[in-house]
Parts: sequence; structure tokens; C-alpha cells
Amino acid sequence: MALTTPRTMPGTLELLPREQIAFQSMLDTIRRGFEVYGFLPIETPAIEFADILLTKSGGETERQVYFVQSTGALEQEGRPEHALRFDLTVPLARYVAEHERELAFPFRRYQMQRVYRGERAQRGRFREFYQCDIDVIGKDSLSVRYDAEIPAVIHAVFRALDIGAFTIQLNNRKLMRGFFEGLGIGDGEQQMLVLREVDKLDKRGAEYVRGVLTGEMFALSTEAADRIMRFVEVRSTSLADAHAKLDALGSGTETFEQGRAELREVLDTVAAFGVPEAAFALNLSIARGLDYYTGTVYETTLNEHLDIGSICSGGRYDNLAANYTKSTLPGVGISIGLTRLFWQLREAGLLKAADSSVQVLVTQMDAAQLPECLAIARELRDAGIATEVALEGGKLGKQLKYADRAGIRFAVVVGDDELARAAVAVKDLRRGDQFEVPRAELVKALRVELAQEEVLTPMR
Amino acid sequence: MALTTPRTMPGTLELLPREQIAFQSMLDTIRRGFEVYGFLPIETPAIEFADILLTKSGGETERQVYFVQSTGALEQEGRPEHALRFDLTVPLARYVAEHERELAFPFRRYQMQRVYRGERAQRGRFREFYQCDIDVIGKDSLSVRYDAEIPAVIHAVFRALDIGAFTIQLNNRKLMRGFFEGLGIGDGEQQMLVLREVDKLDKRGAEYVRGVLTGEMFALSTEAADRIMRFVEVRSTSLADAHAKLDALGSGTETFEQGRAELREVLDTVAAFGVPEAAFALNLSIARGLDYYTGTVYETTLNEHLDIGSICSGGRYDNLAANYTKSTLPGVGISIGLTRLFWQLREAGLLKAADSSVQVLVTQMDAAQLPECLAIARELRDAGIATEVALEGGKLGKQLKYADRAGIRFAVVVGDDELARAAVAVKDLRRGDQFEVPRAELVKALRVELAQEEVLTPMR
Repeated sequence: MALTTPRTMPGTLELLPREQIAFQSMLDTIRRGFEVYGFLPIETPAIEFADILLTKSGGETERQVYFVQSTGALEQEGRPEHALRFDLTVPLARYVAEHERELAFPFRRYQMQRVYRGERAQRGRFREFYQCDIDVIGKDSLSVRYDAEIPAVIHAVFRALDIGAFTIQLNNRKLMRGFFEGLGIGDGEQQMLVLREVDKLDKRGAEYVRGVLTGEMFALSTEAADRIMRFVEVRSTSLADAHAKLDALGSGTETFEQGRAELREVLDTVAAFGVPEAAFALNLSIARGLDYYTGTVYETTLNEHLDIGSICSGGRYDNLAANYTKSTLPGVGISIGLTRLFWQLREAGLLKAADSSVQVLVTQMDAAQLPECLAIARELRDAGIATEVALEGGKLGKQLKYADRAGIRFAVVVGDDELARAAVAVKDLRRGDQFEVPRAELVKALRVELAQEEVLTPMR
Repeated sequence: MALTTPRTMPGTLELLPREQIAFQSMLDTIRRGFEVYGFLPIETPAIEFADILLTKSGGETERQVYFVQSTGALEQEGRPEHALRFDLTVPLARYVAEHERELAFPFRRYQMQRVYRGERAQRGRFREFYQCDIDVIGKDSLSVRYDAEIPAVIHAVFRALDIGAFTIQLNNRKLMRGFFEGLGIGDGEQQMLVLREVDKLDKRGAEYVRGVLTGEMFALSTEAADRIMRFVEVRSTSLADAHAKLDALGSGTETFEQGRAELREVLDTVAAFGVPEAAFALNLSIARGLDYYTGTVYETTLNEHLDIGSICSGGRYDNLAANYTKSTLPGVGISIGLTRLFWQLREAGLLKAADSSVQVLVTQMDAAQLPECLAIARELRDAGIATEVALEGGKLGKQLKYADRAGIRFAVVVGDDELARAAVAVKDLRRGDQFEVPRAELVKALRVELAQEEVLTPMR
């Protein structure tokens, strides 16, 4: 028979079991962080009606969407009725509008699912990837205090992920908009174009950027160009410094002052949530491309790996679901693109290799001992210890090699000698040593060993 | 602006948060069971190459597959290159063939993901649903002992799910095939047709079935028809009874004897794994439609809800991935269709309403107390207690009503009176009572309350 070459679509990240265990451990850590902060789980179907996903005037989004058709639908003409979600925000908007009367507001939801984008296949670009999102949705209004809770969640999650020091950077779109309005740049589109030029400061230098801003395209005064460049370079080093730098901006338009007041309250409340001052900072260059955000905006970077870019971004928006309901639903939220983050950490050599999720292999030297092996395994499993039995039997050396290769830490050996002494031997394959325990105390002994391990490696 | 009606594709099961918590709890329980039995996680992309999914000659599968195309691909002619997986078995076969050299065999994997089928929309039929699968894959050979381990896992998982008494029913395709060969029905297709008729015994009665089997279509003798009907009615009530009923079948072809020997070993080993005799039984009517299975086959039914049908099925197969590799990869596995099971349990009123995953609401009576509320929340969260803060403040009664409606059990009240006494009040909204604890002992007190709850409701 002709074989079909086994392969996966480019742009997907398929992992070997031990990598999957490391990935799952990150998912679990994130979920635990979201839950401990009082967010509720939802899941939405991967397939949505295309008109739900594409309410906004197409463009980039429409080009990237994956349409879905059953065989019957393929045979008909016309645009497909269904498509795969490309983010978790549009499905959230649809969900909240659809179930509005059954939800309690503020609605605090977390959602950790895969999303799909028909990207050009390219290294580090994913067509299928996990997003881990939280959002708080208010009905009619939502206190700015929720904007301060989000960094507290981010901090708890990334501290628990244990991937190095990070900084949660904050800005406010009203502050930014008011600042530009004060310079006579009232149009949002124009503001974004200016910011795009200013983004080139690091690469092209101040001379180049000043040239563009004062040139034909923007026609700003040299003074305005310099003020913009100084504005976007503002970073704070502490809470007091953040307030001082906000003071130093001088007075501005009403929108500017509103944004500054919000930012001050958010910064103070972030500290009141217990986030250490070293973990968050003002960064007035953050805009978040989308028109979507209207107040606080966030980006998070790894201090030692700025090249990775933002690992967790989001912000405040005025109205989540205007396409689906007349209700006003303001909200604030963030998203972690876990597939990309995992891939980047792996590329950078920052991922610790996970042990197997299997903690013990019960070896089998002789078929006559199988019942005893199964009894041991059962006791270990009843105690919550993940256990595999070498049901095939065979040479002990081969069984131990299998355990070692699979990343299983402990091997229990039930030999005739040990059985005669009512004892079992335990090999610790990680430490490379071995000890014997009375049969009746095996579970207790392994529990102690594994509990110590958990203290040492909180990630697992 | 014209609104788009928020709605989901028929055939999907979208849950409200508290239902989602109950669903997630079942997923967690299943995963814990799979892990404690030493199965390793994998996840595969939802989108596969269509030629990988459709190696077998189309038919039913091809009609149900969802094809996937980006906008660019839509504009081109021809059959789409990609499709959504319709089960987890084909992706497993592709995965094992693709990563063969990097895996340790026997490869024990679990996989809990959604699959997609373009079914006709119909009550209780799902187009998107979770499958929770385990399989053990051997290289060249795999001991029949693994066939006995699968019921042990099923038993552990369904006991932990706590959805009522269940019976894991076993049969063996070799026994069945040998039996039919002994009656001169050597063709597998023909055997399946006979079994399909015999399936109607309950509905149409023995007279009708005997009529069909001895009629034009099958032309069996009355004796053969009666033997078939007696064979498929065999059920055991204990391990000894199972052996006795296997004895009573009399001698048969070589295939028949091989199947019987396997079935005996599997039944004995299932008992050695510690599965109580009441939880498993011989059922010689089980065939599992697929040609796929070659040895042991399983179905699991809820004793009090036979109408739900099998809630966990599977079996042994000779070669997992013949379409993708020349290696011989025998295996054994089962699948739980969790979305359908959840839906059926809900329909039957068997689902206990889950509490919120949020355990405590810290109320806020006065903005001046916000720092104290946040400090309390932080301590609770650091202790792993899922906590929400009523950041909006407002009337206490409204905050308590929100907690009650959301299914949050405890509300912490920080009033001026209590603050003056260095105490906090805790309202237990489930029990409808209230107690006061010293501020410094709040975390400890709530931990004790919640630990008691876990003892009482192991599902959460």
C-alpha cells in the first residue's frame, strides 16, 4: 500500500510528550493564577458564523480568516457560512451579548483556547496558537480600579511561571490622545502615523525622526517634534518617580488631564494590590496599535529578553459588543499568546526540561510477581502518585533504561530477595542512587520524596 | 449601526460559567485519572492535511469532514488542502508515525481535545465535541495485559466522576469472528450484517430476528440462528461466572480459542488490577461497528441509565498507522465523548450544580477601606483561595446578592466596627449563617472551612 507521509500543517506547534508536559504546566499555572483572582472559565466553539467574526470592514482580518465548509457546502457556490475564530475577543463579545441576561456583571471571565489565523508560513509565526485571556466586563460602567487589578493578575501569573524578571508597562490612551490634541494633531489616524515614525527612534536616531516629523508628510514644528520624542521616552523607575514624571508633563487638554488622573489612580491601586514597584512602570510610548483601546493600555516585557517583545498585552475599551447589542459594555483585559511565548522561551534556551508526568515505574522481573506489582501500583495510584507498570516485563536493565529515557524519576523493583524480606527497592534515577523500604511503607516513603521535590521545583 | 444577532452554530455546546466549571471539573477528574495511571499528554493541531485525514476510501467520514480554507485558497479551484480532525485516532496514528524515532514504546498517551464532524444538526448530535482518549501503542507487539489495564483506568475515572454505578463490558473480536467462522459465516462484512439484525432482538423479538436470519438474505439454519441469538445474550455476573460462561461455549476454531484465551487472561488481570467484580462483565454482544478492532473490545454503561448507551468504548487493534509507516504498531485504547456525556447527564438531571470557582468575595463598604480589602484579598490569594474583590463598592446588600447569584460561598465583610476590633465578619451564603474571626486568623479559618468542603464534595 502506498504510504501517506505523516506531517503537520506549517505554522502549528506540535510537541513531544515531555515538551507537552512543560506546556501543560504553564497552562495550569496561568489557569491557577486566573482562578485565584476570581475569574470564571468559559469556552466558545472554534467555529463561529462568518458574519459574527467579520462584522468589521474586512481588511487584514478577513484575509487571515479560515473558512470552514462541510463537503455538502463545498459543492454549493458562494462565501462559506462558517469560519474559525482568529482571537478570543470577538467570541467574548458575541458570548456576552448572547448570554447577557444570564450573566452577573461585572463579568470576570478567563478563556484559554486555540485561535486560528491564515498567516503566511514563516518561522515563529503561528497559524494555530493558544491565547490565554482575562477580561472584566461591566454593564454601563466599570470602575478604573479594575484597570489596576489586571497588572496584579499579570504579576501573580508571571511570577508563578518563573521565567525571569519582568516589567508591566502602563500608559493611557486618553493621556496620549490629549497630548497630541494639544499639539494640534487631533486625528487618531494621524496620531498613529506619527507614533509609527517615533517607533523608529532606536533604529534610525533622533535626527532622522525629527526630519520626518518636520517634513512634508507631517509638517510639525521642530519644537512639537522634540516634545513628541521626549514624551514617548518617559519611563518611570518607581511609583514616586512615575508621579513626578506625570507632574513634569505640564498641563494639557481636558482629555489629557482625564488620562493623567486615571493613570495616577491606576498606578496607586496597582501598588495597593501588592505588586512590587520594581514590577510595573510608566511607559508613555505604549499605544497598542488597535483603535479598540480607549484608556489604560498594558505591555509586559522580560527584563533580560527585550527582544522577545511584549509577552502580555491589553487594555481598557469603552464598549465590547456594539456590533451585537445595544447595551454599553465597557471592559478591560489582557491576552497571553502562550504558543508563541513557549516557542520563544524554548528558542532562547529558557525552558527547563520537564520530567515525565509519570513519577514511578513499577518494574516486573517475573510474571509470577505481576499480582504484587499491580497491588503496589494500585496503592501508589490511590495515593495520587502517577504510576506506570512495566506490563511487558523483560530484562530489568531495559525497563530501567526505558524509565530513564522517559524521564520517570523512581523505579520500584520487586525481586524475590526483597519479597522474602517484605521489602522493595526504590531506584532514584535522577540522583542515581537506591534505597530499600519495608513494603508497607513504600507509599509513605515516595510521598515524602515527591513532596520535597515539589518544594524545590514549584513549577511542577 | 445595524446589529448582527449573536448566535452560535447549531451542534455546539456553549456553557454558562457555572456549567463550564462543572464541565471543567469533569475534564480535570478524567485527566487526573489518566495521569495517575501513567499516561502522557499530547495535543495535535485541529487542522490536518486533508490527505492525512482521508486516507481511507471516503464514504461516511468524507461526507462529515469540515474542510478549511483561508481567503486566498477559497479563490482557487479544487479540493481544499486542509480539514478539521473528526476524531483523535487518526491524528494519533499520524503523530506516532511522524515522531516514531523520538517516542519511547510502549507509548502511553492521553489526549483531550475537541473534534469536528459536519453532522446534520439534530438534538443531542454535536458538530464540535470533546473526546478524552487513552491509547497504549506497542512497537511490533504489545502484551494483552495492557488490554486489562484499560478497564482499570476506566474504573478509576468513572468512580471519581461519581455519576452512579457503571459496568465495563468486555468481548473479544477473535472469539466472535471464530464463532461465526464455526457457523460458516467467514466474511467480516456478513458477520456485521448478522449482528446488526441480532441488535434488534430487544425491539422486534426473537421470532422476527430468527425469521430474518433464516430468510433469503442470510439463509442460516434455525439451529445456527438460535446459536447466534444465545451467544450474543451471554452476560456474566462475576469473574467465576464469566469463566463458567466461556467454558459453556464449547470448543471452536483456532481463532475462537485464541479469543477465548485472551478474554480469560484479560478478565483475570482486570481483577488483579483491583477492579471490583461488580464493575466489569462479559458481554458477547459487543462488536463495536468498526472493522478497526481485532481483539478485546469495551463498552461502558451506567447501570441506572442504559438508555444513555455506551459512555466509554474502545478496543485492541493490530496496527495503528499502516497508512503512514511500515512499522507495525499494535495498540489498545478507549475514548470518552465528554460533551455528549455531559449533555446527557444534564438532560437526565444527574448533574449537580457546581458552585462558582470563586470561593470568597471581599466586600467593600467604603472607598477608605479599599487598601484593607486589597490586603485581605492578597493574603487569601497567596493561600490559594480563589478570591474576588467587589471593586465597585456600593450597597452591601447588592454585593451579597451578587455573590449569592454567582454561587460564591463566602463573603468577607470589613466594616468600621469590625476594623475597630481588629476582626472581620464572614458570611457563609450557602449555610446562611455568619461568624466573626480575628483579622489575623481569617486565612486559617477559611482554609479550614474550605478543606471540610473538599472532604464532603470530592468532585470539586
